[in-house]
Amino acid sequence: MARVYNFNAGPAALPLPVLEQARAEMTDFPGAGMSVMEMSHRSKGFQAIIEAAEANVRKLMGVSDDYAVLFLQGGASLQFAMIPMNLRASGKPADYVDTGSWAMKAIKEGKVTGTTNVIWSGKEANYVRTPKPGELSFTPGAEYVHICSNETIGGIRYAAFPKPKAPLIADMSSEIMSRAIDVNQFGLIYAGAQKNIGPSGLALVIIRKDLIERTPESVPIFLRYKTHADEGSLYNTPNTWGIYILKLVTDYVDSLGGIPAMQKINEQKAALLYNEIDSSDFWRCPVEKESRSIMNVVWRLPSEELEEQFVKEAKSAGFEGLKGHRSVGGIRASIYNAVTLDAVKALVGFMRGFEKKS
Amino acid sequence: MARVYNFNAGPAALPLPVLEQARAEMTDFPGAGMSVMEMSHRSKGFQAIIEAAEANVRKLMGVSDDYAVLFLQGGASLQFAMIPMNLRASGKPADYVDTGSWAMKAIKEGKVTGTTNVIWSGKEANYVRTPKPGELSFTPGAEYVHICSNETIGGIRYAAFPKPKAPLIADMSSEIMSRAIDVNQFGLIYAGAQKNIGPSGLALVIIRKDLIERTPESVPIFLRYKTHADEGSLYNTPNTWGIYILKLVTDYVDSLGGIPAMQKINEQKAALLYNEIDSSDFWRCPVEKESRSIMNVVWRLPSEELEEQFVKEAKSAGFEGLKGHRSVGGIRASIYNAVTLDAVKALVGFMRGFEKKS
Repeated sequence: MARVYNFNAGPAALPLPVLEQARAEMTDFPGAGMSVMEMSHRSKGFQAIIEAAEANVRKLMGVSDDYAVLFLQGGASLQFAMIPMNLRASGKPADYVDTGSWAMKAIKEGKVTGTTNVIWSGKEANYVRTPKPGELSFTPGAEYVHICSNETIGGIRYAAFPKPKAPLIADMSSEIMSRAIDVNQFGLIYAGAQKNIGPSGLALVIIRKDLIERTPESVPIFLRYKTHADEGSLYNTPNTWGIYILKLVTDYVDSLGGIPAMQKINEQKAALLYNEIDSSDFWRCPVEKESRSIMNVVWRLPSEELEEQFVKEAKSAGFEGLKGHRSVGGIRASIYNAVTLDAVKALVGFMRGFEKKS
Repeated sequence: MARVYNFNAGPAALPLPVLEQARAEMTDFPGAGMSVMEMSHRSKGFQAIIEAAEANVRKLMGVSDDYAVLFLQGGASLQFAMIPMNLRASGKPADYVDTGSWAMKAIKEGKVTGTTNVIWSGKEANYVRTPKPGELSFTPGAEYVHICSNETIGGIRYAAFPKPKAPLIADMSSEIMSRAIDVNQFGLIYAGAQKNIGPSGLALVIIRKDLIERTPESVPIFLRYKTHADEGSLYNTPNTWGIYILKLVTDYVDSLGGIPAMQKINEQKAALLYNEIDSSDFWRCPVEKESRSIMNVVWRLPSEELEEQFVKEAKSAGFEGLKGHRSVGGIRASIYNAVTLDAVKALVGFMRGFEKKS
């Protein structure tokens, strides 16, 4: 069968040229005589791959030497646990902003091991926006402030980031490398790779080096950032295949012109969809305009029956992954970096046809 | 270039038919219109893959319904931390057997969070054997007894396993599915996938269900076995690609006749090498015969210069990964399930030529 239009929320679409290169190198990586999966993580061949992956991240995102770039396992969910274990001393508080499902998962995990202050919540308003900078009041003495910069399920993102005195920590899983950000605003940025930069089973962590030293000695060795930073992410065997694919994806992003070029295309893609949704009462986007994500576009139809019908007919027409998350319903199109402008144009065309006949 | 003879200790050789199938399905998994890496972990397509992977593990290893089969991240190294966090209550001891580098890594991690009794150590004798059953005296009230069933670096394994009253826990990373074992002897078996059953970034955990309930509430949610067992390893996005490859590897093992057939070939492969080593004073295996691993065969030459020369000439002749671990030196051939009898025969041929000319 032909490849479908893939709007999955994650794991999600990968660039076709990346898959084609991985296929070409599957049994025999150039110069190695074996698959990347069969290479020692301490071999020169793999060393070149992980170094190139790190160099790509640093170049594309503008990451200075003040930060370590780590390739870890366990996805963003392990980071929900590692962040408070490493960065919040016993008895001290940390601030969290509740913008939706993923922020709440971090909060829930934070509460297990210490004082977790929710300093803002969009829950009562059904998570239709992120907070404006002036709305947040930080806890004096908080060890850090945690945000989810883009909520995959709610389809909201920060237009501007908060500026607390404490280190700002951001879960960027569903928008990493989709728009230009200033890394220096953050103490720690993390992302599960499976939405914008690679396959699942890999987490990218960018951490300011002074924070690496904070960890109490009671934390298990494997769960300390220092353990992985000291060994260049090779304390234990990392997800070598995931790092290889991330390297190919970031090569590809670089070849297209880097993050500014991706952002331009992403904004075009998002505008196409939001304009279509806003153009008629048939569609309705619940998210306030300023907070609308350019990665996860959510909308509703006049009834749940029509939504179900839409997803079903879209699937028959070759559009996958459009069903909203089971916790909120509706429609969601995840339009990550690897989703092409053509795919979004095709979706808009399909939407017009569906509206006309409904 | 042609594929080399791959004797890597891990990540290690994978069966060529597995790589060929992964290549064929790279851009378009049958019926999905996308790569496995692009499939939602909650899609029907991936659900079928993870269920087949679990069914294969249960069938091949004879795992009963008394045990949960989990596909986790973080490799064996995260298990070193999770085991004491989950299974050793505050203030209670756990027993560990020190058979070499990997056992010691588990011990070091165990010591961070509680009382870790080393009830036997092979260190003074340079780790040339595992303990005999009668040599171990267990600590009364110990929560569990931890062993490394096969030491990748030292090349030793248990001919027979200890039988403590407390649950026996085994790191089987470098021998899982290489020989028949009785799972019911164990409370928990774990293995990083990257030696015998798949790529890195994936850990297989087989845990007796009653042990899942032991975890104290102070343990972070992500680090509880229960979290993953309750959700069929889909609490968060797992390493989907790794699980897919593990499914293909276990399909392949099954097609060859399962673990008894693998064991027979593995014993043949190991016998070829050990017989060659024992046949001449030029080679010397430091490991006592009863403890010799059938997965990691280690040996020495008359001098370190000759060892270096051997590794160098072997590499030129297409044999990769023969250098012993940097911590012990010498030669090591890892002959996991995916290393063919022909590869071992070719290595023995090369050894004969090298000995003759030296």
